[in-house]
Amino acid sequence: MSIDSYEASRKRSDEIRADLPEHPEKYTMLTGDRPTGRLHLGHYFGTIRERVALQNLGVATRIIIADYQVITDRDSTENIADNVRNMVIDYLACGIDPEKTIIFTHSSVPALNQLMLPFLSLVTEAELLRNPTVKAEMEASGHTLTGLLLTYPVHQACDILFCKGNIVPVGKDQMPHIEQTRQIARRFNERYGHVFPEPDGLLNNSPAIPGLDGRKMSKSYGNAISLSSTDEETAKLIKKSQTDADRTITFDPEARPGVSALLTTAALCTGRTEEEIAAEIGDGGSGTLKKYVTESVNGYLAPIRARRQKLAQDMGYIEEVLHEGNRRANEIADATLDEVRATMGMVY
Amino acid sequence: MSIDSYEASRKRSDEIRADLPEHPEKYTMLTGDRPTGRLHLGHYFGTIRERVALQNLGVATRIIIADYQVITDRDSTENIADNVRNMVIDYLACGIDPEKTIIFTHSSVPALNQLMLPFLSLVTEAELLRNPTVKAEMEASGHTLTGLLLTYPVHQACDILFCKGNIVPVGKDQMPHIEQTRQIARRFNERYGHVFPEPDGLLNNSPAIPGLDGRKMSKSYGNAISLSSTDEETAKLIKKSQTDADRTITFDPEARPGVSALLTTAALCTGRTEEEIAAEIGDGGSGTLKKYVTESVNGYLAPIRARRQKLAQDMGYIEEVLHEGNRRANEIADATLDEVRATMGMVY
Repeated sequence: MSIDSYEASRKRSDEIRADLPEHPEKYTMLTGDRPTGRLHLGHYFGTIRERVALQNLGVATRIIIADYQVITDRDSTENIADNVRNMVIDYLACGIDPEKTIIFTHSSVPALNQLMLPFLSLVTEAELLRNPTVKAEMEASGHTLTGLLLTYPVHQACDILFCKGNIVPVGKDQMPHIEQTRQIARRFNERYGHVFPEPDGLLNNSPAIPGLDGRKMSKSYGNAISLSSTDEETAKLIKKSQTDADRTITFDPEARPGVSALLTTAALCTGRTEEEIAAEIGDGGSGTLKKYVTESVNGYLAPIRARRQKLAQDMGYIEEVLHEGNRRANEIADATLDEVRATMGMVY
Repeated sequence: MSIDSYEASRKRSDEIRADLPEHPEKYTMLTGDRPTGRLHLGHYFGTIRERVALQNLGVATRIIIADYQVITDRDSTENIADNVRNMVIDYLACGIDPEKTIIFTHSSVPALNQLMLPFLSLVTEAELLRNPTVKAEMEASGHTLTGLLLTYPVHQACDILFCKGNIVPVGKDQMPHIEQTRQIARRFNERYGHVFPEPDGLLNNSPAIPGLDGRKMSKSYGNAISLSSTDEETAKLIKKSQTDADRTITFDPEARPGVSALLTTAALCTGRTEEEIAAEIGDGGSGTLKKYVTESVNGYLAPIRARRQKLAQDMGYIEEVLHEGNRRANEIADATLDEVRATMGMVY
């Protein structure tokens, strides 16, 4: 993606952010997660919190639990049903309201998935192979490039366009996907007739949330605090996180990644700045810092965890939420597919 | 595809041919056509006649009208609804019985199409790019390789496996597709649990049916006699076909492609051999030959064309056949997708 088109996307994203509180009814947001584990603080501060805010602003919010994306680079669907149900619990505990937001699973909406066929006809092999994110994800996974990962930007176009989503929260590195979705929408509209909006990426303004070791937060690095962990598990994870021997606490992400990641974690949970917290601890050492971080995180997550626990005791309700979400997603997908078929002349 | 594996496929095909009259109930056949125009004599003698025979033997027969395949290498779906309806008329006129055979359109069966996603995870990019038929079709079309053509062997696997088809009539050049379908079925079964049969190609034993100029019969070459042409149109097409100046009629496909193609056409329609017909005409010249071919073709097609004309007067019935076929295909696809979801643990 060129710098120019990135700048144009950033500008559109800023304009939309300004317009959102004024005209939330103009927007449909599609967003989602791969159900490969429990949600953690990185997800929460990175996207979940914003989803809840947009939902509450009145934006039509659709959350896809992207279960087929689990097999883009894995040969197994182990624990998938459990991961999906826990993801619903995490969402609801964080404030996603199933009365306002449609939560659904990718594999439960055949009409959405059928869009793959017309959409695949609108992209060339060369365009599929050129997508930088696909390559990066393939390399990160260490798995051979499957047909499913190769066509991943096309499924994502299906996910976004089946509900005529026009905003998608993204990081900078996901902008090429949004560009490919815009291209698919544009080509479909030009070739057959207007059906789809050209969605915009809503660029993430929040700073990157580091894991406890300063790297990207990820369950597989063991540096992630899950929303579903207990207070004790959280305390233990923070306790064993790597800091350094300098007793004076300062915020310096380059030179002191461990200490700084802890400060950022506490800052996010308390609304204070990293510098303020560091000054307060002074030369109390990493023990004092870790104690403060543990209290901040557990305090912040307490209401979420309490709701989580309550929700987990009523799995019937969780399934009901998912069934109702899938029912509504199917209703929307069926209507869109009918429109697509009519526009393409495929009505028999 | 190696010679060894071709020989193995040929052997399996022969064994199945021998077994078919004994145990037709063991077989489900999936076959179909792209709705890009009217069926012609090449289709009829190449595959339609055999489909009717297998249907009447008691083989479960499913015919897909592959409307999405039209856009693998075209940017338009012009006339598609008309082509689809005429294809149904052609089938019924040739003896396909909608009470016995399910006729359905690809775009009408979302659960079939959803199989694309798990199946794409079972093939690698390299395997997709390696398929020789995809490359040949791309080159023949003169169109850029679309994502839809690139993944064509995977749709075909969906088409075959959604109804657990275990035999697919094919020409030798389509064997790599069947091999890819077998591989997808095998990998799915190994990875998640047994759901799919590994289908066999039923290799075409009939000789290639030449167009009137000796080349492959194709509407775009102007060398094809459509089932739906009138007697007059047929006579005109045969009359203007290219023969040669030698008044003595002999069967020699290499040296006399035009004359020989006419002889083969008449042979197929009369059940006589090319040599017999050639001997009878002797040195009557191509005028006599063409008269004989015209009478043979129009005579042979007379009952098909009479049924065609009658069917075309009741389009309500044609739509009913298609709706009922689509309904039955959806029923089968929904059941298979449910089984796939259960086997993959995607039941929420």
